[in-house]
Amino acid sequence: MLEIVSGADLIARAAVDAGVNFFAGYPITPASSIYAAMLKNLQAEGKVALGVSDEISALSMCVGASMRGAKSMTASAAPGISLMVETISYALVTETPVLITVAQRLGPSTGAATQNAEGDLAFLSNMIAGGYPIPIIAINSAKSAYDLTIKAINTSELLRCPVILLSEKDLIMSSYSFETDALVPKQIINRTLYGTDPSNPNRDGVFKTYNFAELHEVPEFVAAGSQAEEPRVVITGSMHDKAGNLSKNSNEALELLKHHKSKIVDNLDKYLFYELNGTQDAEIAVISFLATDLAVREALRSMPDAKVKHLTLQTLFPIPENLIRETLKGCKHLIIPEENMSGQYSSAISYITAGTDIKVHRINALGRMIKPEEIKEVINACL
Amino acid sequence: MLEIVSGADLIARAAVDAGVNFFAGYPITPASSIYAAMLKNLQAEGKVALGVSDEISALSMCVGASMRGAKSMTASAAPGISLMVETISYALVTETPVLITVAQRLGPSTGAATQNAEGDLAFLSNMIAGGYPIPIIAINSAKSAYDLTIKAINTSELLRCPVILLSEKDLIMSSYSFETDALVPKQIINRTLYGTDPSNPNRDGVFKTYNFAELHEVPEFVAAGSQAEEPRVVITGSMHDKAGNLSKNSNEALELLKHHKSKIVDNLDKYLFYELNGTQDAEIAVISFLATDLAVREALRSMPDAKVKHLTLQTLFPIPENLIRETLKGCKHLIIPEENMSGQYSSAISYITAGTDIKVHRINALGRMIKPEEIKEVINACL
Amino acid sequence: MLEIVSGADLIARAAVDAGVNFFAGYPITPASSIYAAMLKNLQAEGKVALGVSDEISALSMCVGASMRGAKSMTASAAPGISLMVETISYALVTETPVLITVAQRLGPSTGAATQNAEGDLAFLSNMIAGGYPIPIIAINSAKSAYDLTIKAINTSELLRCPVILLSEKDLIMSSYSFETDALVPKQIINRTLYGTDPSNPNRDGVFKTYNFAELHEVPEFVAAGSQAEEPRVVITGSMHDKAGNLSKNSNEALELLKHHKSKIVDNLDKYLFYELNGTQDAEIAVISFLATDLAVREALRSMPDAKVKHLTLQTLFPIPENLIRETLKGCKHLIIPEENMSGQYSSAISYITAGTDIKVHRINALGRMIKPEEIKEVINACL
Amino acid sequence: MLEIVSGADLIARAAVDAGVNFFAGYPITPASSIYAAMLKNLQAEGKVALGVSDEISALSMCVGASMRGAKSMTASAAPGISLMVETISYALVTETPVLITVAQRLGPSTGAATQNAEGDLAFLSNMIAGGYPIPIIAINSAKSAYDLTIKAINTSELLRCPVILLSEKDLIMSSYSFETDALVPKQIINRTLYGTDPSNPNRDGVFKTYNFAELHEVPEFVAAGSQAEEPRVVITGSMHDKAGNLSKNSNEALELLKHHKSKIVDNLDKYLFYELNGTQDAEIAVISFLATDLAVREALRSMPDAKVKHLTLQTLFPIPENLIRETLKGCKHLIIPEENMSGQYSSAISYITAGTDIKVHRINALGRMIKPEEIKEVINACL
Repeated sequence: MLEIVSGADLIARAAVDAGVNFFAGYPITPASSIYAAMLKNLQAEGKVALGVSDEISALSMCVGASMRGAKSMTASAAPGISLMVETISYALVTETPVLITVAQRLGPSTGAATQNAEGDLAFLSNMIAGGYPIPIIAINSAKSAYDLTIKAINTSELLRCPVILLSEKDLIMSSYSFETDALVPKQIINRTLYGTDPSNPNRDGVFKTYNFAELHEVPEFVAAGSQAEEPRVVITGSMHDKAGNLSKNSNEALELLKHHKSKIVDNLDKYLFYELNGTQDAEIAVISFLATDLAVREALRSMPDAKVKHLTLQTLFPIPENLIRETLKGCKHLIIPEENMSGQYSSAISYITAGTDIKVHRINALGRMIKPEEIKEVINACL
Repeated sequence: MLEIVSGADLIARAAVDAGVNFFAGYPITPASSIYAAMLKNLQAEGKVALGVSDEISALSMCVGASMRGAKSMTASAAPGISLMVETISYALVTETPVLITVAQRLGPSTGAATQNAEGDLAFLSNMIAGGYPIPIIAINSAKSAYDLTIKAINTSELLRCPVILLSEKDLIMSSYSFETDALVPKQIINRTLYGTDPSNPNRDGVFKTYNFAELHEVPEFVAAGSQAEEPRVVITGSMHDKAGNLSKNSNEALELLKHHKSKIVDNLDKYLFYELNGTQDAEIAVISFLATDLAVREALRSMPDAKVKHLTLQTLFPIPENLIRETLKGCKHLIIPEENMSGQYSSAISYITAGTDIKVHRINALGRMIKPEEIKEVINACL
Repeated sequence: MLEIVSGADLIARAAVDAGVNFFAGYPITPASSIYAAMLKNLQAEGKVALGVSDEISALSMCVGASMRGAKSMTASAAPGISLMVETISYALVTETPVLITVAQRLGPSTGAATQNAEGDLAFLSNMIAGGYPIPIIAINSAKSAYDLTIKAINTSELLRCPVILLSEKDLIMSSYSFETDALVPKQIINRTLYGTDPSNPNRDGVFKTYNFAELHEVPEFVAAGSQAEEPRVVITGSMHDKAGNLSKNSNEALELLKHHKSKIVDNLDKYLFYELNGTQDAEIAVISFLATDLAVREALRSMPDAKVKHLTLQTLFPIPENLIRETLKGCKHLIIPEENMSGQYSSAISYITAGTDIKVHRINALGRMIKPEEIKEVINACL
Repeated sequence: MLEIVSGADLIARAAVDAGVNFFAGYPITPASSIYAAMLKNLQAEGKVALGVSDEISALSMCVGASMRGAKSMTASAAPGISLMVETISYALVTETPVLITVAQRLGPSTGAATQNAEGDLAFLSNMIAGGYPIPIIAINSAKSAYDLTIKAINTSELLRCPVILLSEKDLIMSSYSFETDALVPKQIINRTLYGTDPSNPNRDGVFKTYNFAELHEVPEFVAAGSQAEEPRVVITGSMHDKAGNLSKNSNEALELLKHHKSKIVDNLDKYLFYELNGTQDAEIAVISFLATDLAVREALRSMPDAKVKHLTLQTLFPIPENLIRETLKGCKHLIIPEENMSGQYSSAISYITAGTDIKVHRINALGRMIKPEEIKEVINACL
C-alpha cells in the first residue's frame, strides 16, 4: 500500500515490528513525533506506552521493564537526553537492552526546538563517565528509518546494552509517499535466554547474572522477578563480580569493567551498518551520515562522471576505524559534510588521517542544511 | 600556622576567599568532603550553603543565585554531574558564572564510590550538545587546590560561564601538614558590571543582556532583579539575540552561538594554567595532570640526570594545542600517564601527534594509582 | 478450593475480577502487600502494573490511564497518601474514576510502619480543599475485602470519582484459610459511555465532557484520545463549564462545584454498604468498622442474651446520617470503639447525638488493638 | 509614615521583624504576593530567601533550616499546601517551628487562582494523619496581618511546631493607606534554648532532643549541627523516645504521641487570639473570622442599637471550645458567615450547639464575598 508516512512513523512501526512492547517517554520537539506514534501504535496493540513525569522516569521505567524481559524504548532530544545520562550509564553497567531514539535539534540548552541540527555526536559518544562507548546508529533518510530501527533494537538485544538510534528533526518530521507493504523485518534478534543455547560456554551449572568466559561475550539473560524455579538475578550499578555481588576492586570486578567495553568494541562487526557507493579506486572520498547524506547523494547524482567514493555511515560509534581506513586507501581527499559548528565527526576521526597525505575537507553549517551545491563545489575543487 | 588540611579543605577555603557566597549541593562520595567543608565555612561566615533535594536543584539554585549576583559553587561526582548536564548547558547559554567542582571516582554508573580514578575527562569535555567547550581546570596536588580553585572561580567570572574544577578522590580526601598563613588569593577577578568599564566598547547607550562587539568579548553583567533604576535583564536558554529576545535563526542568534564558543576558546590565554619543568631541549616529554602528576614528579626526582621535559597541565580543556605543540618541538617521545582505561586525554590530543615522528607512550591503570616506577621504566626505555 | 490468603490477596484478586487493568504504586508498608499482589496478578494477565518513582507519579498515572478508559488503582499508607492529596482533588474535579486503597498504620509522620492503627479517618475525609467529600469504604475483615473492593471500584465507576478503600495493617497482612471458589463478583459496574444509554437526559446532541441535567447526575464518559470520529474531550482541574472550557466564576462554573458535591452526597444510597445485626429494639447500639468490628462481634458472641443493636459501617463517608439516626432510634447508649487517640469517627458524627438523650461511649486505643473484653465491659455497664 | 501597603506586605514586614531569617517558597497565586515580598525584604537584609523547585522542597528546606536554628517560613495556596502535607506532619513530630502562610483561593483542585474563598478550613485542620491539631491563626483584615503574623511566629517558637497563618486572596492582595511607624512587634518569643532556663524541670543533666516532664511541656532546643561541645541532637519522623531513638511501641513512645497533641491543645490559652465586641448580654451572637469579619463589622456599624455579641476569632484551631461556650451563654441565636459552600467552621463547632436551644444560622457564599446586607438581614430576623 502506498502511504504517506514520516520518519517518525517508520521508526514507530519498526519498533513494534521488532517486538518493542514497552515505551515510556516525555514529550520534546522533535522527538514528540516518535513519542506520539509509539503511544498510538503500541496502545493499539494492547501493549504499554506511557507518557511519564520526566525523562529520568521515562528511561528508568524502560530499563526496569527490560530487566523484566520487555523490549523497551524511549525517545528524546538533547535537553531530555542530558537528564538520562546517569540512567544510560546504569543500563550499560547492568547490561540492560534499551533503545534510546535521539531526534537532534539545534542546541545548546533549549536552543531552537524546531531547527534542524547534527550537533549531538560528541556529546552522545562521550556520555559514559569512565570512557565507555555505546553503539550509535544513525538513520540517513526517512526511508532508512525502518530498517535501521530494527537493526538498532537487534543490536541492543544482541549486546544487552543501551543503543542510540540517532536521527534529526528534518528526517523524522518530513513525510514521504511510501510503499509500506515491503516493510517487514529481515531479522529479529532477541537476547539469549539462559539455558536456551546448549553451546554457550559461559556457564558451569551455576547461573550468574553477568557471566561470560571471554571479555567480549554477552551474558545470558534471565528476567528479574521470574517464576520461583528460575535462578536468582542480582542487579547493581555498583562495581560487581559476575554473580552481581558488590566487589569494589577485585580482579573479577575490574574484568567486568573491561568486559563492558570489549562487549561493544570487539563485536562491532556484528552491527557495522553502512553503504559504500561510487568509484572504488577514486582519489576522492566522501563520508556522510544523517540527513546530510541525502545532499551528498544528490550532489553525486548530478556529477555522474566524477570519480568519487562514497561511504554512508550508519553505525557511527564505536568509530569503525578499519572500515574508514580501508575506504580511504588510495585517497588523496576526504570530504565530510556535517550540519554542526565545526565538524564533530571529523574531529572524532581526525586521528585516522592526521599526518597522512589525505587532505580533509570539512563542510559545516549551523542553523541550515548543507546544500548539494556546496558539496559539489568542494568535490570539483578536489578533482 | 601549620595545619592538617585536606584538598577538600583547601578548595573550600579558597572558594570563600575568592568571594563565593552561595553553595548548594547534594552529597556524594568523594565530593561530600567539599560539600561538608563548604557548609561549615560559608555558614560560619553567615553566607548561604544549602544541602538540597538533588543535583538538578543544587546546580539550578547556584545558577539562579549567580544571576542575582552571587558567586556560586557546587560539588559532585560523575553520577551527580550526569544529572547536571542540562543545567550546565543552560548556564553556558545564559552566560552565568558558576563553579562546578568534580571529584572523580571509579565509574561507570555507581561504580566504586571510594576508589580513585581519572576517567571523567571525555565525558566532561563533551557535555554540551552542539559541541561547545567549557573550561576544565584540574588540580594536580592537594597543595595546588587552593590556588587553582581561585583561578577557576576567576575564570568563571572573567568569561561568565560554568567552569569545571577537576579533582579526584585521592587528592581531596588526603590530608597534609600545611603552612596556611600563606594562603591568600593572588588575584580576585569579578565579572565586569555594566557601566563600570568606561572603555568597554560593547555598548551604545542601550543595555543588552548579551551584548558584545567582537565574538570573543564577554557581556557586561547586571544582576537580575536589581533595583528599579537598573536596566532590564532578559535571560533565556532558548536561541536569542543580544538583547535576550527569542530569535530562532537570525544572523544575530547564530552569531550568539559562535560567541559562546569563541568567548571560551579565543580567551584561552587568559586562563591557561600549567607548569613547565625539566630540560627544555629534551627529546622526551611527559604531559601529566591530576594526582598522576605527583607520580611523575616523584619518578623524575629519582632520575635527576635524565633529560626529560615535563609539562604539568592544569587547564586541560579547551585543549591548549599551541602550548602542547610548542612543548613537543624537538621531541621524539611523548609519555602520558592517566588513571583510566585507555588514555582519554591521550586520545583527545592524539590528532596533534598523529602522523608526526613523535612516539606516544600511554601509561594507564584502572582501579589503582600509577606508580612512579612504571613511569620511570617507560622513560628509561625511551632514553 | 481452600486457600491461605491475606486481605491484600483478596483485594488484589477482587481488583482484577472487577476489571482493573492499570495499577501504579510506590511501595510503603503495609500497603506494599497490595502493591506486590497487584504487580503479580495484573502482570500475569498481561495487564499494566507499574512500580513508579513516587506516589505523585503513581496516582497521576492512574488518573491519566483512567481518562484513557482504563480501570485504575493505587495503594499506599498515610505518608504516601499525603503526597497524593493534590492529585485526588484533581481526580475529583476532572470526574475521573480511580480506586485508592489506604492501608492504615500508626502515625503521624513516618510513625511506626508495622504498627496497626485506625487513625486516618479525619485526614481522609477532609482532604479536598473547599470541603468536598469523597466516598470512603472500609473493609471490616479480611473476608469482606473481596466484596468491598469490588463495591468500591463499582462506586468509583458509577460516580466517576476517586474512591478510598480503607483498610489497616492487621486486616491486609493477616492470612486466612479461605474457600476461594465462591469469590466471584456479584455485580460489575462500568462508567456509562456516551451514547450507550438512550434514556440519558444529559445530552442534546452535543457532547460535553462534564454534562448533566440535574446536579447529582454523573456525566457520560468518552475516553480521551479515542478515535477521530469520537467527540472531543476537554479535561481541566481549573474551574470550568460543562464543556470543560475555563470559566472562572460563571453561574455554570459554580453549578459544577455544587455538582461535585451533589454527585457524591445525593447518590449515597447507591453505595451505602453496612450490616445491621443484633436486637432491633435494643437500647444499646454499637457502631463499628474496620478491624475493630471483629472485636465487637467477638464480644457480642460471648453475650448472646444482651440486647444490643450492632451497626457495622462499611461506607464511612459521606456520613450516612439517616442510617445512623434510624439505627439510634430508641437507644440510650451508643458505643463506638476505634483504634485511634480520641475517637475520630465519634467526633465526626458527634453532631448527630449532641444534645440528645443518647450517651456516647468512646473506646479508644493507641498502638494496640481494642480487646473484646473492653467492649463487653462497656456494654455491661450500659445494661 | 503613611504608606500604601497590601496584606502581603504587612505579613512580610512582620515576618522580618519577628526574626524570620529563612524563606523558601514556590510561587502560586495569591500566595505569590507574600513570596515576592519575602524575597525582596529578606534579601535586602542579607538573609536567605529562595525560590525553589517545588513546594515539597520549599517546606523541607524551611524545616531543615529551623532545625539548624533559623526562624523559617513558607507561603502557598491549597494546591501547594496539599503537596506539603507529609512534611507538615514531619515538622510536627520532629517538633520543628515553622510558619506556613496559606492564602486561600477558590478550589478544589486548580480551581480559580484569582477568586477569593474561605474553603480550606476543614482541610487544614485535619491534615495530620492520626488526628493531631496544629495551630491555625487567621488574619481578619489586612491591618491585622502584621500583629497576627508576629503572634503566629511566636506561637510556632513557643510550641516548637508548624503553625498555619491563614489568609485569603482579598486580604493579602488589597492595598491600604497605612501608618507604618506604629508597626513594631509587641513581643518576640524565641524557642527556649537548652540550658538557658534554670527553672526548666525537663532535664536531669542529660540532654534529650524531645525531653519533657509533663505531656504539655515543650522540649528545650539545641540546633542540629552546632559546635562540638554541644549535646548531640537526634531527629526522626519515626516513633521515638524522648532521646529521639527509634521506639516503635514502648510506653515512652506512646507518651510522645500524646505529647504532640497535649503540647498544642493544653497550651491553647497561650495563643488564643480573638476580639470580643458588642453587647455582652445579647441574645444574638455572631462568630466571624477572615475577610468576612469585615462584612460583619460593617453590618454591625450600620445597626448600632442592635444588641449583638460579636466574637472575632483569630485562633481558629484547635477549636477554642471554652471561649465559644462562654460567649454563647445566654444566647438564642448564633450567626456564622463563611465564604465557603456550606459552613466548614460551623460544621466543626456544631457539636457545641447541637441539642441546645441556640439556633445556628449559617450564611455561606461561593465565588463571591458575603455582603454586610446579608448579615444584617439575618440579624434582623433574629431580633
